[in-house]
Amino acid sequence: MKKISIFLCISLFFSACEQINEQKSNEENSIFEEKSAKNNFGIILHGGAGTILKENMSDSLEAAYYEVLESAIKTGHQVLEKGGTSLEAISETIKIMEDSPLFNAGKGAVFTHDETNELDASVMVGNTQDAGAISGVTRIKNPIDLAIKVMTDSPHVMLSGEGAEQFASEKGIELVDPSYFFTENRFKSLQRIKDSEKTELDHDGKTSSIKSEIKDSKFGTVGAAALDKHGNLAAGTSTGGMTNKKWNRIGDAPIIGAGTYANNATCAVSSTGWGEFFIRAVVAHDISALMEYKGLTLKEAAEEVIQKKVPSLGGDGGIVAIDKEGNMVAEFNTAGMYRASMNAQGEITIGIYKE
Amino acid sequence: MKKISIFLCISLFFSACEQINEQKSNEENSIFEEKSAKNNFGIILHGGAGTILKENMSDSLEAAYYEVLESAIKTGHQVLEKGGTSLEAISETIKIMEDSPLFNAGKGAVFTHDETNELDASVMVGNTQDAGAISGVTRIKNPIDLAIKVMTDSPHVMLSGEGAEQFASEKGIELVDPSYFFTENRFKSLQRIKDSEKTELDHDGKTSSIKSEIKDSKFGTVGAAALDKHGNLAAGTSTGGMTNKKWNRIGDAPIIGAGTYANNATCAVSSTGWGEFFIRAVVAHDISALMEYKGLTLKEAAEEVIQKKVPSLGGDGGIVAIDKEGNMVAEFNTAGMYRASMNAQGEITIGIYKE
Repeated sequence: MKKISIFLCISLFFSACEQINEQKSNEENSIFEEKSAKNNFGIILHGGAGTILKENMSDSLEAAYYEVLESAIKTGHQVLEKGGTSLEAISETIKIMEDSPLFNAGKGAVFTHDETNELDASVMVGNTQDAGAISGVTRIKNPIDLAIKVMTDSPHVMLSGEGAEQFASEKGIELVDPSYFFTENRFKSLQRIKDSEKTELDHDGKTSSIKSEIKDSKFGTVGAAALDKHGNLAAGTSTGGMTNKKWNRIGDAPIIGAGTYANNATCAVSSTGWGEFFIRAVVAHDISALMEYKGLTLKEAAEEVIQKKVPSLGGDGGIVAIDKEGNMVAEFNTAGMYRASMNAQGEITIGIYKE
Repeated sequence: MKKISIFLCISLFFSACEQINEQKSNEENSIFEEKSAKNNFGIILHGGAGTILKENMSDSLEAAYYEVLESAIKTGHQVLEKGGTSLEAISETIKIMEDSPLFNAGKGAVFTHDETNELDASVMVGNTQDAGAISGVTRIKNPIDLAIKVMTDSPHVMLSGEGAEQFASEKGIELVDPSYFFTENRFKSLQRIKDSEKTELDHDGKTSSIKSEIKDSKFGTVGAAALDKHGNLAAGTSTGGMTNKKWNRIGDAPIIGAGTYANNATCAVSSTGWGEFFIRAVVAHDISALMEYKGLTLKEAAEEVIQKKVPSLGGDGGIVAIDKEGNMVAEFNTAGMYRASMNAQGEITIGIYKE
């Protein structure tokens, strides 16, 4: 089925003006074209997928999103351009989104049912396949930094809760008071969802046990994937999880293989979606496996998993990924996904909506 | 390299006597032969891999292990024989090992650095690819039951810590005082490791940062995989984690894709090994992907991952798995792995050592 895709391109070299282009695409939700295989570095990010519709977005809010997305992608790109590692690049990119109240990660993390903020993050590098992850921390300003520290400075891959924070203290990672994560918007979202739980049922058959506002609030994870000039891939993901989550729920963001995966033989992937389905589909590793074992391109593998496998389980969301040749893909099956990419030529692409 | 493998077979139909058979195998560590593809149900379990050597085992301890392994595999097999589901079968099998102090799960869970017991478990079914997992619980007598409850009675896949216990209370799962998990042996192990940390360095180059006693104490997870008469696969895994673990470390056991995976299109897998490497290698899902995308048999896929991929990262351990035809494999690259299997014909196989 053909659909019209709208995306916004900003050219660094020609002008600062924003252009809105419409283009038809044979692939229902494939927004970004694969980049030339000749690029030797590149970075792509997401700021969450979900029911993101133009009609619900004010001009000023849209501009605010573009500003952070542009700043985040340029920052990571500069790291790569100067010969920095893909790990450094995704870290710098993700931290800009973690520090913004606009995204469901770091500062802008959503509230749990108990009105706390529980943060998860993970990272993986493609050369050694080293990985680090944390879940359920409440006092870490930049969770992606702690995930990296777990990878580099502990014998473990995954730490959680108070133990992870104790590790952070020992390693000099910045701790903040939990009140740092209070934002009025996120707090109001929680209250609306709690109210709707009492009064409103979701009529979407696929998600009958999930209330309607929860459905729209399970997204917002940020993440990035990059290839550096040394040929090394890395991916990272950071989130506040699902609004109104209970029972110390862990989603896909801190799960290596689901939320994050990197392998120099194939690609680096960061996921954002309905975490439960992304865990069950082992989304990030499955994309890599389809490339490695079945010979699919990154684009084909991402489509297979995001447009077929995840929806067949009943889930939705998206991924950003880059392969070892520098081809980049942003694939999602939701109304929109905040995203940006920048290749070795400095070409930048920023998008929000599907159409 | 040819090595001599010793394994013990118990025939249900001919005698109760134990026979020790030696056989040469071209495959270094492949103990169990693949079963006939004509079996329409079967179950296989593990009770942990590691430096399990005949010379370190007393006759009475060995007999005690065999007794529990036999009881556990027969219990699960009876469920299948009566037409029960693979999920019920692995649950009953795993609970017998959780209730034994011999295995590092449930009652016999190892101690953390802080002298507590933190339990992890996960489960997945192959028909719907539903999954459930818990991490870091301290009061759950049978963690596998709680993982199943998360799968069946919550909108989530993974819950952790106190939140998971709150969920358990709400659902009527049995809670016990944390003192239930105290066993003298495990407590002494922790003390020995803490002592050795102060005085003894590990001279194994691969694991230079890990002390020698820790190296032998990172195993002991239990798990099972089964195919039922309805053609449905399921796998589950339960563990106390790594002795002396710090910072609320999470290993592979509760990670869907690493410690547990099931898919009716391919196989069901339960892992036991050095969790950090099993997470990075996404072991359980990788075996499934090699079958689905590359056309390998279960045996070939398990060998590829356990004998090549995991060791290439520096890790060790093993898996048990069963495919949709009923073929069963126990694959490990350690000195031994507690294991047992039973097929549709009632043939039972129990093993401990590699050779």
